[in-house]
Amino acid sequence: MSKSDFPLKDVYGLLETGPVVLISTAWEKKESIMAQSWHTMIEFEPPIVACVISSLNYSHELLDKSGECAINIPTLEIGEKVAACGNASGREVDKFKAFSLTRGRAEKISAPLVMECHANLECKVVDRMEKYELFFLEVVKAHVDISVHDPKTLHHRGYGAFMVAGETVRLESEMR
Amino acid sequence: MSKSDFPLKDVYGLLETGPVVLISTAWEKKESIMAQSWHTMIEFEPPIVACVISSLNYSHELLDKSGECAINIPTLEIGEKVAACGNASGREVDKFKAFSLTRGRAEKISAPLVMECHANLECKVVDRMEKYELFFLEVVKAHVDISVHDPKTLHHRGYGAFMVAGETVRLESEMR
Repeated sequence: MSKSDFPLKDVYGLLETGPVVLISTAWEKKESIMAQSWHTMIEFEPPIVACVISSLNYSHELLDKSGECAINIPTLEIGEKVAACGNASGREVDKFKAFSLTRGRAEKISAPLVMECHANLECKVVDRMEKYELFFLEVVKAHVDISVHDPKTLHHRGYGAFMVAGETVRLESEMR
Repeated sequence: MSKSDFPLKDVYGLLETGPVVLISTAWEKKESIMAQSWHTMIEFEPPIVACVISSLNYSHELLDKSGECAINIPTLEIGEKVAACGNASGREVDKFKAFSLTRGRAEKISAPLVMECHANLECKVVDRMEKYELFFLEVVKAHVDISVHDPKTLHHRGYGAFMVAGETVRLESEMR
């Protein structure tokens, strides 16, 4: 998979369709990957994303300590690995190793990228809302395989059911 | 379209796939409908949804004053009306009338429901984060056409491009 630098102003279009993402974190020698669907765009430029990351998740601790993570966007091709990431805890399992995922080196953060994903977004925590365990993440660098025009992203419906991204239609919309 | 009371504990499954929603609001004799994609689940039960609603949108004023809205989930069948709602402002246009949408009466809120949508979620504002124009909405009542198993929801990619919900697959996921 060959990735290009992707304009930060266009990042929202990757996330506002609501895909399941893999959030990768690292702190000292610990790492984790979390499957996550509770996120929303907050700002276009610089792109800011809000994510709910419960303190029950190991990723919460690593994100809290490091202030950095990558948002990686997987597609159906690695659906089983995505589900496996959701079923295990980084406290007990090295998810890169256990699920044969490839670590990539980020440019602006220490957290690893998940290279099997068509998009990798390097993020820094810029704000918090503790009450709801919300992290506000600024995307500082984006790497995308632009040969993937209609990524078959996964959209979680619950209890093992995932909607797979279908066709793209055009409507007379003036919305950015 | 025949709708049933829908369990509040299952509401997250309607929203966490990331569909474009129509947010309907009312205050005194004023009403609006806003097309919106910047939302995320925050809590399962009671269901709480966070939505970014800019103060540039007329809906912000109506929501601010009334503290209530409906989140209506449209499908491809009314895609053109959804795009039209996004292109116009409720300050100038009666969107129900202009786009031939049907007002429905809610049970627990004063805002109207958009009856062409397969799901209507009655919401009350329970929290705010002013800095990002985030409203936290508790879903207090849900009406869903449960005959629609795989709703062809719209997922905004930007500038007129919308991904339409595709097939649903099953993966070995233990996630709620």
